[in-house]
Amino acid sequence: MDTQLRVFVVVFGVLVGYMPFSIFCRYEPNWDSLDKRPLPGWYDEVKFGIFITWGLYSVPGFGSEWFLYNWQYKKDKAVVDFMKKNYPPGFTYADFAAQFTAEFYDPDQWADIIEASGAKYIVLVSKHLDGFTNWPSNVSFNWNSMDVGPKRDLVGELATAIRKKKDIHFGLYHALVEWFNPLYLKDKENNFKTRYFPVDKTIPELYELVNTYKPDIVWSDGDSTSWPYWRSPDFIAWLYNDSPVKDTVVTNDRWGGVMCQHGDFWTCHDRFNPGHLMPHKWENCMTIDIGSWGYRRDTNLNIFLPIEVLITTMVETISCGGNLLLNIGPTHDGRIIPIFEERLRQIGQWLKVNGEAIYGTKPWSHQNDTVTKHLWYTSKKNSAGGVDVYAITLDWPTNGVLQLGAVTTATPQTQVTLLGYSNPIKYKQDTKGLLIALPFIPITIMPCQWGWTFKMTNLKRI
Amino acid sequence: MDTQLRVFVVVFGVLVGYMPFSIFCRYEPNWDSLDKRPLPGWYDEVKFGIFITWGLYSVPGFGSEWFLYNWQYKKDKAVVDFMKKNYPPGFTYADFAAQFTAEFYDPDQWADIIEASGAKYIVLVSKHLDGFTNWPSNVSFNWNSMDVGPKRDLVGELATAIRKKKDIHFGLYHALVEWFNPLYLKDKENNFKTRYFPVDKTIPELYELVNTYKPDIVWSDGDSTSWPYWRSPDFIAWLYNDSPVKDTVVTNDRWGGVMCQHGDFWTCHDRFNPGHLMPHKWENCMTIDIGSWGYRRDTNLNIFLPIEVLITTMVETISCGGNLLLNIGPTHDGRIIPIFEERLRQIGQWLKVNGEAIYGTKPWSHQNDTVTKHLWYTSKKNSAGGVDVYAITLDWPTNGVLQLGAVTTATPQTQVTLLGYSNPIKYKQDTKGLLIALPFIPITIMPCQWGWTFKMTNLKRI
Amino acid sequence: MDTQLRVFVVVFGVLVGYMPFSIFCRYEPNWDSLDKRPLPGWYDEVKFGIFITWGLYSVPGFGSEWFLYNWQYKKDKAVVDFMKKNYPPGFTYADFAAQFTAEFYDPDQWADIIEASGAKYIVLVSKHLDGFTNWPSNVSFNWNSMDVGPKRDLVGELATAIRKKKDIHFGLYHALVEWFNPLYLKDKENNFKTRYFPVDKTIPELYELVNTYKPDIVWSDGDSTSWPYWRSPDFIAWLYNDSPVKDTVVTNDRWGGVMCQHGDFWTCHDRFNPGHLMPHKWENCMTIDIGSWGYRRDTNLNIFLPIEVLITTMVETISCGGNLLLNIGPTHDGRIIPIFEERLRQIGQWLKVNGEAIYGTKPWSHQNDTVTKHLWYTSKKNSAGGVDVYAITLDWPTNGVLQLGAVTTATPQTQVTLLGYSNPIKYKQDTKGLLIALPFIPITIMPCQWGWTFKMTNLKRI
Amino acid sequence: MDTQLRVFVVVFGVLVGYMPFSIFCRYEPNWDSLDKRPLPGWYDEVKFGIFITWGLYSVPGFGSEWFLYNWQYKKDKAVVDFMKKNYPPGFTYADFAAQFTAEFYDPDQWADIIEASGAKYIVLVSKHLDGFTNWPSNVSFNWNSMDVGPKRDLVGELATAIRKKKDIHFGLYHALVEWFNPLYLKDKENNFKTRYFPVDKTIPELYELVNTYKPDIVWSDGDSTSWPYWRSPDFIAWLYNDSPVKDTVVTNDRWGGVMCQHGDFWTCHDRFNPGHLMPHKWENCMTIDIGSWGYRRDTNLNIFLPIEVLITTMVETISCGGNLLLNIGPTHDGRIIPIFEERLRQIGQWLKVNGEAIYGTKPWSHQNDTVTKHLWYTSKKNSAGGVDVYAITLDWPTNGVLQLGAVTTATPQTQVTLLGYSNPIKYKQDTKGLLIALPFIPITIMPCQWGWTFKMTNLKRI
Repeated sequence: MDTQLRVFVVVFGVLVGYMPFSIFCRYEPNWDSLDKRPLPGWYDEVKFGIFITWGLYSVPGFGSEWFLYNWQYKKDKAVVDFMKKNYPPGFTYADFAAQFTAEFYDPDQWADIIEASGAKYIVLVSKHLDGFTNWPSNVSFNWNSMDVGPKRDLVGELATAIRKKKDIHFGLYHALVEWFNPLYLKDKENNFKTRYFPVDKTIPELYELVNTYKPDIVWSDGDSTSWPYWRSPDFIAWLYNDSPVKDTVVTNDRWGGVMCQHGDFWTCHDRFNPGHLMPHKWENCMTIDIGSWGYRRDTNLNIFLPIEVLITTMVETISCGGNLLLNIGPTHDGRIIPIFEERLRQIGQWLKVNGEAIYGTKPWSHQNDTVTKHLWYTSKKNSAGGVDVYAITLDWPTNGVLQLGAVTTATPQTQVTLLGYSNPIKYKQDTKGLLIALPFIPITIMPCQWGWTFKMTNLKRI
Repeated sequence: MDTQLRVFVVVFGVLVGYMPFSIFCRYEPNWDSLDKRPLPGWYDEVKFGIFITWGLYSVPGFGSEWFLYNWQYKKDKAVVDFMKKNYPPGFTYADFAAQFTAEFYDPDQWADIIEASGAKYIVLVSKHLDGFTNWPSNVSFNWNSMDVGPKRDLVGELATAIRKKKDIHFGLYHALVEWFNPLYLKDKENNFKTRYFPVDKTIPELYELVNTYKPDIVWSDGDSTSWPYWRSPDFIAWLYNDSPVKDTVVTNDRWGGVMCQHGDFWTCHDRFNPGHLMPHKWENCMTIDIGSWGYRRDTNLNIFLPIEVLITTMVETISCGGNLLLNIGPTHDGRIIPIFEERLRQIGQWLKVNGEAIYGTKPWSHQNDTVTKHLWYTSKKNSAGGVDVYAITLDWPTNGVLQLGAVTTATPQTQVTLLGYSNPIKYKQDTKGLLIALPFIPITIMPCQWGWTFKMTNLKRI
Repeated sequence: MDTQLRVFVVVFGVLVGYMPFSIFCRYEPNWDSLDKRPLPGWYDEVKFGIFITWGLYSVPGFGSEWFLYNWQYKKDKAVVDFMKKNYPPGFTYADFAAQFTAEFYDPDQWADIIEASGAKYIVLVSKHLDGFTNWPSNVSFNWNSMDVGPKRDLVGELATAIRKKKDIHFGLYHALVEWFNPLYLKDKENNFKTRYFPVDKTIPELYELVNTYKPDIVWSDGDSTSWPYWRSPDFIAWLYNDSPVKDTVVTNDRWGGVMCQHGDFWTCHDRFNPGHLMPHKWENCMTIDIGSWGYRRDTNLNIFLPIEVLITTMVETISCGGNLLLNIGPTHDGRIIPIFEERLRQIGQWLKVNGEAIYGTKPWSHQNDTVTKHLWYTSKKNSAGGVDVYAITLDWPTNGVLQLGAVTTATPQTQVTLLGYSNPIKYKQDTKGLLIALPFIPITIMPCQWGWTFKMTNLKRI
Repeated sequence: MDTQLRVFVVVFGVLVGYMPFSIFCRYEPNWDSLDKRPLPGWYDEVKFGIFITWGLYSVPGFGSEWFLYNWQYKKDKAVVDFMKKNYPPGFTYADFAAQFTAEFYDPDQWADIIEASGAKYIVLVSKHLDGFTNWPSNVSFNWNSMDVGPKRDLVGELATAIRKKKDIHFGLYHALVEWFNPLYLKDKENNFKTRYFPVDKTIPELYELVNTYKPDIVWSDGDSTSWPYWRSPDFIAWLYNDSPVKDTVVTNDRWGGVMCQHGDFWTCHDRFNPGHLMPHKWENCMTIDIGSWGYRRDTNLNIFLPIEVLITTMVETISCGGNLLLNIGPTHDGRIIPIFEERLRQIGQWLKVNGEAIYGTKPWSHQNDTVTKHLWYTSKKNSAGGVDVYAITLDWPTNGVLQLGAVTTATPQTQVTLLGYSNPIKYKQDTKGLLIALPFIPITIMPCQWGWTFKMTNLKRI
């Protein structure tokens, strides 16, 4: 190789190294190729998102968003009785559409609440397994939120409102299966040797969604049939190579039998919260309501997780490298009920104080403490090039001392602070760990409730 | 050719002559080939059918079955005002579905009324241009009569009821276009260079209809876009070659720009009644309501054609070689209203007396009389091999003499009778025609009202 | 008596003789006194009225206007099943109110149809036994046609429309009992020793109706409890003495156990048609629907009396001195259905020809003929001071002769005419009666159908 | 007086002294007499009750329970627009009845929540100013919760459920006026010289309510017309003398122009909270929603008073001798929404710790502190015959010392405790008051939040 060539090769190599993969190379529609795609950076930074499950099931608001399935397929007694008692014989699920009024749906108000919660992304249900689309789908004539019920583009309106906010990403949930779509049932009858349903319905719909609303997340679900039926890799390859969101979009792992195996982030199962590090970026999708994602009325206060549990779950999830996607279910008339709003605003209050220990962090060498229960760690590069470590305790010990068993590397330069509290915190490095002397702070001026973060700087690198 | 061969050829020829065309030869999907198909015999025999226009438009029952179009596309003031006055803002056409209750729909009762009318076939609207299907279509999820509204297979139930009757053929109307289907609108936007709509919707639906309900008539409509878009010849070729009704089915001429040119029978335009012979079998489709096919409420008695007009139209139509397809519009709750039932039963009464001059007849050498107005002819082969001629007069002359200007060939064997009246009728053959001496029959024992048939036997063949 | 006094007495007597009874004398609230009131003249003149039964029962339109009673009290299986099948559990009668839309109610159109029928009065249901008032009653808050359902004063609007017509009297039907009014049920429980219901509800309502709408007829019904409970004589005395309609109003005999005994005219029982003279003015109230007064949907054509029966009933009723009050039941949306309109217009056609033999007539010495069946008589003073007799035959004899067995007093001056036919009619007076030679009239120029009137002048007085 | 007589008089006097007033003496129907009645003891003991505002207005759930008035009378633009946008033209208030479904109304669940709140009485709206009755009233036929809407006796069911609980009194709210009742409007037109409305409606209804449901509270409202129109004293005299609840019932001061003047307890105006002692027992009726008593949907979290404000209000009210009647508005489908339940349960938690300072207490010599803000006093006789004083502070001072300026009489025997906390509390009596040394209690083991009670025993009597 002569010099010129050599220089060229080196320069080319450097340039190529800085070019996004997609410029000179395309993903193939197979999992091996798709798995090579690096995760767009924003997703791991933001940590916390809001899931919004809203649809026809919000009208009966009974049991869960699987209302139709529980009623018609499982013949769940409670649901069957509810229908018998309150509706005329022969009333169908489709008849609920007229009552999906959404008259109080104010997307800007929703966006305000979401912003106040400290969430940095949302995932809105565009279509659940009942098949009703929350946007005017080309392939769901008269079975969508523009033709019946709300008479509005629920998806489009929220997309607009969210994008008025700084730094909140807009994502969409989409169910592959429609339990009772006759084309799906026909394919099922044919043991999925035919593909009428994905060809006529699911796939056109996914393209339409992405082209129209340009979501940063395509959150797939309802993947009980395996991926060759859906040809999911084809769609994902398009998403990565050619879609209008190819540089920012992330997608999950529910594409037909690949859960916890493929996808930009893994969800594994609902309320997935492993308590340890995972080999891949993951997300804990869970819901404030202990038993339902969609809004339900047949309950009382005790189904709403208390704020303490929500903060705990967030801390556990982020410490182990996950994102928390926390669900709320709006009502048929378009409201986020006050108890949900209260929980979200409480999280926002907490994040105002403790957000530094959450956003943009990485898992530390330890996830939870070796000695003290309910104590979790995160870490973050600081501007000095070092790493700050955050110990988040969900209890405030009554003996005045917080023992960080996992912290053994304090240096003389190490400083400990309590986020939201200006006075310096005393500590002692010991073989049993770092012993923090808790300050006496009267209840009315505690920096926050439900969880407290001690930040440690200048620990020795291990 | 040797003898054996010759014998073979002859025998083969004879056999082939008796074999239905379809056994050894298939229609090509082009009009030339399709036009070669002989009309299945039953259709010309039966003469009189009932058209039933029933769908979502029956719920508002206002204006006509083009309610949606008049409201949303034409912005017809009467319709717009009706909606504003009676429905909440934002009410859509789809919202009518919940009120399409059909609780009084009794297909057997309908079949009884149809039988009593003397009709020998029906054509039921399976889907109109609004796109709502009256059967549980595979490609119209939640926008069909099983999922919403009636929660019944309106088409299937009537098919069953009609088939319990002897000698009534079951046919289906189907609209190609759906005014507001987004796939259709997309194709339209693309100047019909794309074919999303026929491929995903219209064509699968037509196959489904024929395979499921095996109609003897496929009555196409809504053909404002030309046939290459629909690929109508492909479907018709299948209908003639391979469908389960290939030997009996007939279809009309509304397949995309071929009206009055192709099809088993021609409809040319609504209320087509040329008053003279046509070069091809045709049908006069008309409706008792002077202005609407679907049921409407914003009217009173004067929109219902009187029985005299209906009998006149039937006589004119049959004399000129057409079939009469007379429409009624049932209500949203599934009833044939009494005024329609009355008209149909009146026709049935009339046909009990005069049916001999209608069913199974052929046009005569003259269609109407050369001298006397409101006098029409039909003819029929009799068992002796001759032809009987029927003169149907819609007036009963007050001067006691009925002059048949067109009848100049009475022989001494010619007998004249009045259908429904046992006494022989006196007449005189004259150069001015056949002069019939009308009997004096007191009103209370007239054989029928509205039209009277004089039958003439043994006229000289011309 | 001196002359002056004598003159005074005479003059006074003459004046008093011309004064209406009410000026110097008042009816007492007891039947003896009330019975003395002479019948206001108009009522016997007009002969023919239309009854209109319209209310909440028109919404289900099932069974009859006793829907509520049949459902809740009798537990009629058909009604109970209808409700179970079509409505949610717990649906009440009051829930029908929202569906009593009356959006097509056009009182002027109704008045046109009524005028076309030849009727000279109407009786509109203001409140039936369900208690729902068709006007904004002061004592039926939120249970009347202004507060719920139509949101219109159904009574007031029709009163206005009818009064635009010449010569049609406006009357009101009112039910005393309300089956399920808790005040009525309380009185019933107390064996009607308490009178909460009439005091708080019925009586204030009757006064309100008369003062507001000034009806010429107060047609009482629902009188299963006897008159002392209602204090009917008090109300009627007020009606006769002091009400704004005291000079014109007439009332019937359904005021609590006095049917066929007291009242301006007797109704005795529904469809009362005695076939002979009665000692008091009476009315045959009957309905075109053979089984219901309110509109019903669960039927077909065969429940509507044919025009022949209606004409027959009218002729029988008028011949025997009655008035015919013929009922129709409009729909929940405010329409007179075409079959009712057709019957009414047919009657109007018939009356155009034969009205001379109906309006303003008196019964003759014979009501029906002694020899020929279906032949009835009426009579009328003519301008010459004599009496013309009308023989109305419902058959047209096929032998060419109509024998009037009851007519034995033709004089040489006697002329016989057929109403609607200009040629004179030949006859022969015979001991067997008057033998009329029926003219030969071709069907198409008969003056009318269903009944024919022969008028005879200058019969000898008996 | 001889001895026997003297003995008799004494004995009689003693007996009489122990006899309830009503045995030998009756209240006259005038305010002077009625005012003499002693307040039944239970009412001042219980301190805290729940008001429940539930009715047709809960269906639109918009603005407030004055929805009808704001819409129809004030023509409030927001309400008018809401109706125009969401309902058909002509929709009336009465039309909401069908949507008052109450399908989730579970009175036992309500009673559980009420019990958990620590409330000792409830006041349920039986009828608001719209006139719709929540029980099957005899004088509101088809305009009550049994005939339309819920089809249930809302009042009776809750009475039963509440009475299953120990120690919760059942009371009823009842509005005198009905804004749009035609009888009321008539009286108004007559300048209230007629009394159709109270005679036929209000008064029978009040008797019916008391006789049927035997409420311990008759909470009158809607008294814009003065008491002679209502004849309130007559009803109250009956209530005190002869009603089934004569010994226990209490009533308020809204009986027509006597607010803050007559009645067992005074309410003066809504949210009455004078901040000082009153000369008469009073009640602070207020609602968690800052602007509405009935449930409303057009809001978000910020309309619900935070728990801190509720605890503060309770403390202020009880310290000044009032009762707190705290309102919640259930939904049209019969639910107490979670945010209300949360607030009520939070109050209950607080009362579990601090109830000793609330129930059965009397105002102390000082109501609030002279030095420290947000610090209120109550007192209670202890078993030793002395009086314990409770200082309730709504702040937890950050300087470690709570100064009770009003407490100057500590004795050596005086003990200070913090309710819910077992360790003794150190203090110092000083001329500036009692100085309490606040213990250092880590947040997680504070006995309660939002307010803390220091109990002082053995103060010197003043």
